[in-house]
Amino acid sequence: MSKILIKNCIIVPMEKSINDPGPLYYEGDIAIEGNLIKSVGDKVEQDFKPDTVINGSNFVALPGFVNAHTHAAMTIFRSYADDLPLMTWLQDKIWPAEDKLTKEDVYWGSKLCVLEMLLSGTTTFADMYSFMPEVAMVVEETGIRACLSRGLIGTGPGGEQGLLEGEELVKNWHGKADGRITTMFGPHAPYTCPPEYLEKVMDLAKKYQVGIHIHVAETLGEFNDIQKQYGRTPVGHLNLLGLFEYPVLAAHCVHLTDGDIDILKEKGVAVAHNPESNMKLASGIAPVVQMLNKGITVALGTDGASSNNNLDMLEEMRSAALMHKAAGDPTVIYSYQALEMATKNGAKALGLGDKIGVLKPGMVADIILVDFDKPHLYPRHDILAHLVYAAQSSDIDTVIVDGKIVVQSGKPLTIDVKETCEEIQKVANKIVGSSGSR
Amino acid sequence: MSKILIKNCIIVPMEKSINDPGPLYYEGDIAIEGNLIKSVGDKVEQDFKPDTVINGSNFVALPGFVNAHTHAAMTIFRSYADDLPLMTWLQDKIWPAEDKLTKEDVYWGSKLCVLEMLLSGTTTFADMYSFMPEVAMVVEETGIRACLSRGLIGTGPGGEQGLLEGEELVKNWHGKADGRITTMFGPHAPYTCPPEYLEKVMDLAKKYQVGIHIHVAETLGEFNDIQKQYGRTPVGHLNLLGLFEYPVLAAHCVHLTDGDIDILKEKGVAVAHNPESNMKLASGIAPVVQMLNKGITVALGTDGASSNNNLDMLEEMRSAALMHKAAGDPTVIYSYQALEMATKNGAKALGLGDKIGVLKPGMVADIILVDFDKPHLYPRHDILAHLVYAAQSSDIDTVIVDGKIVVQSGKPLTIDVKETCEEIQKVANKIVGSSGSR
Repeated sequence: MSKILIKNCIIVPMEKSINDPGPLYYEGDIAIEGNLIKSVGDKVEQDFKPDTVINGSNFVALPGFVNAHTHAAMTIFRSYADDLPLMTWLQDKIWPAEDKLTKEDVYWGSKLCVLEMLLSGTTTFADMYSFMPEVAMVVEETGIRACLSRGLIGTGPGGEQGLLEGEELVKNWHGKADGRITTMFGPHAPYTCPPEYLEKVMDLAKKYQVGIHIHVAETLGEFNDIQKQYGRTPVGHLNLLGLFEYPVLAAHCVHLTDGDIDILKEKGVAVAHNPESNMKLASGIAPVVQMLNKGITVALGTDGASSNNNLDMLEEMRSAALMHKAAGDPTVIYSYQALEMATKNGAKALGLGDKIGVLKPGMVADIILVDFDKPHLYPRHDILAHLVYAAQSSDIDTVIVDGKIVVQSGKPLTIDVKETCEEIQKVANKIVGSSGSR
Repeated sequence: MSKILIKNCIIVPMEKSINDPGPLYYEGDIAIEGNLIKSVGDKVEQDFKPDTVINGSNFVALPGFVNAHTHAAMTIFRSYADDLPLMTWLQDKIWPAEDKLTKEDVYWGSKLCVLEMLLSGTTTFADMYSFMPEVAMVVEETGIRACLSRGLIGTGPGGEQGLLEGEELVKNWHGKADGRITTMFGPHAPYTCPPEYLEKVMDLAKKYQVGIHIHVAETLGEFNDIQKQYGRTPVGHLNLLGLFEYPVLAAHCVHLTDGDIDILKEKGVAVAHNPESNMKLASGIAPVVQMLNKGITVALGTDGASSNNNLDMLEEMRSAALMHKAAGDPTVIYSYQALEMATKNGAKALGLGDKIGVLKPGMVADIILVDFDKPHLYPRHDILAHLVYAAQSSDIDTVIVDGKIVVQSGKPLTIDVKETCEEIQKVANKIVGSSGSR
């Protein structure tokens, strides 16, 4: 079993709650044995003989980020359609382009996404898209961790085929890649999946004992349409159908009533908040402060690169903290809370709270080391505020997933950067042509 | 005279308006002779013999960013006080700490700020603080361009001394450092500078023919207090005093009436918008879209690092674009407009519109080269959207100010990084102690 020792770093274990006594970070060593964390902070036992020793003296160690909602292959459409109204963006640009995608395109799009995520400290992501076996192959090859779901549209002609592919994904890939891959079913949204279709999804979730990843109440249009069609809010509608009897990862949750928030809390639904996507598409401002105050697990996601336009979780934390303060209270989404959303809340939301998201002995070693020896991270008053308000993804030096080093000195060890960038440019040229801005 | 040739880069000259015909960017060469741009885009004349040739094949060239409002030395307080109500932040943390500052502290704080700004592509900044000769020395030594103003508080005991220092700054430093330094007078705000004090400031501005840099209508509290005290809005109050008969750089302008906006337009007041500071301190959302639609020159600033907490203009563009979209219209602050705010609008706001802010022959060579050979900048659909929504400051490869290369391959040529970081940590420890987060 491989043994890694990280010496003399500043450790942000993310184990404590903000109200617990004692410091939220401190200096110490981290020992990793196989894929598990052996010790955090304490001097390691004398008989621990590491294969690899990392000098952590300028590094801050924290749990790898969990990107709780994305569509990995949509890096293909990064900066392809911007500054447009939502429906123009979707109907005139994104959907016609998506119709042309092949499984090879999705492979390269997902690989570029994983490359960017690993380099910026994301060690786990929740994905919803099509051609998911290709995404699973990318996860297996690159060493990242993922919770994968086949996106399902119940209103179109591909609905039944989608269910078959979703079931195949769960059967073939759940628990694979040394356990780094888990799966969910991915009904797209209440407005694209009628009740009878959602019944089939629930039957499958029950049969395979996996969760459900779904977009909920992303736009006011959806909220109003569902109200009109069913006489209930999107959350109320899904609740009445029984969807929340399953573990649910609900993306967005922008338009909620107080009653909806009570339902989410009571049913233990986890929310993936996507601040930059919500701002960029003008979807609205999710009641994140209210949900967190109720004790709902709110995680953070980037959404696809086509509506962001990067996959940078440091930036997403900052945007979450700023966006909700802008509503009028500068004390909300304080730095530690933003970090919780990006790490342990993400782990919980993906059903991985017992494995990842905090640094403590016995947990799986998904760890990132941030190089603090940068001008923009001086002077060092508060490590947490630096991480949320000042750090940038190029400060990520080392990324460890499942006890293996996958990024070292800012360089990926499992992905050929040049090949990936060249292939994705070919895919983009093929799908949409080289467009430019005018 | 030194001659630099940048070959085969993508050029974003920022000269055109969005509605002009023709492309907003194209491939070509840029020739620099002495401190001036000799040609942009065209093949350079055969008799142009460069001393330095830069291969620009992966680079995007654009005008250096203008940070139109900051307090450079406040890098000392980066992450010193966060997630607090505005008045607690100011009265309990920032002001007591500022009282302890010496001129040496301001020198190192400003140097760290300039280091971070140059590395992230800012070639000009507008500063307002105390111990300004030290800031001017930093500008002179580091090769950056700046518009400096001595911050003036008319309500306290140091009011007259401030005026003397402000006058000395203008007399001794305006036009110095090969013309890279210009000056303004810096009355802090209408609520800290009574009318009779502002009269004195205006007399000085008239005498020395320089502009005025002032905070205006940053908070609702200020708006209400000024209304109560003078029966007019902050903008109306300053207008009645005659302040807008001078060239004015008005920072923030968050709380404005429609009438205020008309005044700003009519009087040619330039506005420095600070989206991240405004969000972080919950100051409110400035009517930037409305001001831009009226034709007001709205530039971008980071404000001090104590309320941001970095000095990253790429991030500031992104935050501006996202923040205003979030209010309900995803088409506002489109990428080219965000770039205009960060470059040519900034140049105009500082009274430098005839020298910098666009790339064309005869303008001063303040140019940055962004390395686009990064995973998060693939594929290349739209260079402008990539710059605003996906790029990060570590993508800045080369920075040229006044025809001189000051950052090369991401490394500063005019500042000792190690010394600066060590000195600033000493200053921070002396001023506020090492605090940590709890």
